[in-house]
Amino acid sequence: MTQIDATHDPALRSWVPGADGHPDFPIQNLPFGIVSPPGGDRRSGVAIGDGILDLKAALAAGLFAGAAAEAAEAAASDTLNGFFALGAGPRRALRARLSALLAEGSAERDAAAACLHPAAGCTLHLPARIGDYTDFYVGIHHATNVGRVFRPDNPLLPNYKHVPIGYHGRASSVRVSGTDLRRPKGQLKAPDAAAPRFGPCEKLDYELELGIWIGPGNALGEPVPVGAAETHVAGFCLLNDWSARDIQAWEYQPLGPFLSKSFGSTISPWVITPEALAPFRIAQPPRPEGDPAPLPYLLDAADQRGGAFDIALEVLIETAAMRAAGLPPHRLSLSGTRHMYWTVAQMVAHHTSGGCDLNPGDLLGSGTLSAPDPAGLGSLLETTRGGQAPVVLPGGETRRFLEDGDAVILRARAARPGAVSIGFGECRAQILPAV
Amino acid sequence: MTQIDATHDPALRSWVPGADGHPDFPIQNLPFGIVSPPGGDRRSGVAIGDGILDLKAALAAGLFAGAAAEAAEAAASDTLNGFFALGAGPRRALRARLSALLAEGSAERDAAAACLHPAAGCTLHLPARIGDYTDFYVGIHHATNVGRVFRPDNPLLPNYKHVPIGYHGRASSVRVSGTDLRRPKGQLKAPDAAAPRFGPCEKLDYELELGIWIGPGNALGEPVPVGAAETHVAGFCLLNDWSARDIQAWEYQPLGPFLSKSFGSTISPWVITPEALAPFRIAQPPRPEGDPAPLPYLLDAADQRGGAFDIALEVLIETAAMRAAGLPPHRLSLSGTRHMYWTVAQMVAHHTSGGCDLNPGDLLGSGTLSAPDPAGLGSLLETTRGGQAPVVLPGGETRRFLEDGDAVILRARAARPGAVSIGFGECRAQILPAV
Repeated sequence: MTQIDATHDPALRSWVPGADGHPDFPIQNLPFGIVSPPGGDRRSGVAIGDGILDLKAALAAGLFAGAAAEAAEAAASDTLNGFFALGAGPRRALRARLSALLAEGSAERDAAAACLHPAAGCTLHLPARIGDYTDFYVGIHHATNVGRVFRPDNPLLPNYKHVPIGYHGRASSVRVSGTDLRRPKGQLKAPDAAAPRFGPCEKLDYELELGIWIGPGNALGEPVPVGAAETHVAGFCLLNDWSARDIQAWEYQPLGPFLSKSFGSTISPWVITPEALAPFRIAQPPRPEGDPAPLPYLLDAADQRGGAFDIALEVLIETAAMRAAGLPPHRLSLSGTRHMYWTVAQMVAHHTSGGCDLNPGDLLGSGTLSAPDPAGLGSLLETTRGGQAPVVLPGGETRRFLEDGDAVILRARAARPGAVSIGFGECRAQILPAV
Repeated sequence: MTQIDATHDPALRSWVPGADGHPDFPIQNLPFGIVSPPGGDRRSGVAIGDGILDLKAALAAGLFAGAAAEAAEAAASDTLNGFFALGAGPRRALRARLSALLAEGSAERDAAAACLHPAAGCTLHLPARIGDYTDFYVGIHHATNVGRVFRPDNPLLPNYKHVPIGYHGRASSVRVSGTDLRRPKGQLKAPDAAAPRFGPCEKLDYELELGIWIGPGNALGEPVPVGAAETHVAGFCLLNDWSARDIQAWEYQPLGPFLSKSFGSTISPWVITPEALAPFRIAQPPRPEGDPAPLPYLLDAADQRGGAFDIALEVLIETAAMRAAGLPPHRLSLSGTRHMYWTVAQMVAHHTSGGCDLNPGDLLGSGTLSAPDPAGLGSLLETTRGGQAPVVLPGGETRRFLEDGDAVILRARAARPGAVSIGFGECRAQILPAV
């Protein structure tokens, strides 16, 4: 696991405006992304307070040397795939150098300041070209809640506690936060209807997930051992895996969800590194009494000791009426990564266990992360019990599922005593009417 | 639909050695691929007889003009993605020009001959960078055979005749013909075992499929109408969607196949164009009495009239013992594209109907294509009835599922009276032992 070092020092302050006390991007975070400054083309940047450091400009200004320069060169592109491929060594060297450059008292403050763009004027893009996108199902409370609809007495299928269940998602339709989402059409069939019809989705839902960016890949046919799996992770983001529940119910047998998910997924733009999250590692919560032990290929002592995360995850909604009335977004759910039944290392080890190759820029999703309590459910399917119990919003509106004009916002926050808390930035999209 | 033109003339002959009467690549075919000649780097080529025309060299020699040159320029790369993106117009112009160049009596025979590589010395590669890979399930006899195992009286699920069922496959592990396939390991659980164990797959199988290359894409949120869907297809190949039946049985609920498929898929290297297949179009076979009509978004008169194909598809096996004994490959199955319940246009229209974007170089699979008769089953799962009825091979060996050292070979042949028949080339891979 990544060690705590000088870059995590809570006493560290930055000369960049807005960095100290920033809810997402204090100097202890330093996430990477792809941005366009006004009138400029795509380039990599680092979020710091209210600014974005232009990595290519900083490289050209001679601010990096050695492994940090190697990392900055790989990142000086319109995607971060090459940077992801380098792995942890150069990434850590770049982080250490960025921390020194952006800290109060930096000798190169003026040179670095010349490479800063105000974040407000920048456009954010997908950070990498996504080769394949895999969505897991490791949120055990979500799996239980969904399973309960079909099997009240035995909600989890027999494989759930043995297999980190996952499936292939659609990579092409992943979009960055801020991109509107078109309500899909599809085949819908009411349980009592004789035949399906084709029309706009009537049960549009979000799913609150952690996204995982793959760094160095593995060759086809060469599994990654669970103890080495963390070295294949480049970072993390928020992921909203939009779901059309009515399309899903009719299409998903026998091969799983397809068009009910492939119309779009939204991710947050900033890649939060494993280094930035090092202070927020926790032991994998013990399995409930009676649960089977993971098979040996999924079991690593260090991973069990410190391979999980404590990150709070939040869903908010902002309807058109709320916007018009000047009401702030309303929290629908507060959950977190504690509710993952499998660690990220277990997901990576399982994914490659049959020989499947992962590549830099592949994206994994955790699956919906619901807390066990009613205020922490990661989808409307759960919160409204499939639409039976509408939620009441500020202003008196209700929602069974999402309506046109609704914006859904995901946020993440990692905090613990003795560490400076960091966030992921927003993952937001607004629903457009069906065509 | 593509028209028959002078490039299909059965009287057309080529000056290239081996082209006339070639089972796969007479001058009426002209498929595109990515090849390396001995000591050379990757480039696009056109298969003709026993040779491969080097498109970049031919372009440099000034052999193309106008739209044909535009197409050759887009193809002069190490992948065909840019060529696929151009669509049918330039592709047809290039085909017409290639046909003239390679025909007997060509005025530029010498210049073209200088751009030919002997096929035997060339290495073939994946023709395109595959963005996403989607596998359909349109082989109704296969779906019926597999469903019968679980539901003898009602093998097809209620959605089958309404929805072109498909799911997302793994794009990263698609490999070109000739690449060995490593037997996967995975979680296996016998029905009577208390818990799963981890070990090499014991029920390794092939699946006989038609692959479809996507040409011009569609924007996210903008469905492709079924009547325009054919214009988004760049070509066709053979696809062996290797399957680990034991891993699949334990993992696939509730989200579908995952590691049981993602360890590898093998495709044939040559992209057979819609133009080459124009003579082999047939009407979509009428649906059996009582089957529902497709919903309007899947129904187009021209597609019903001529959107299906009549292509024979064959599976052969060659075991290590057969190779040692000098025995030729043994045919396990003879099936064909007539057994697709949905046309390619219906697959494309359905895939995009919810707004999902397709991109140049995306790959679609038809799903396993089994004929209704016992000699035409597209997987060992069907042929051996899940291993209960082993097949006997020349030399006396038997197979329930595939063994290490077995090579599986897929072939395709399109033929009809009055047309020169064409083939797809081989799709072949040999099984390596598990690591």
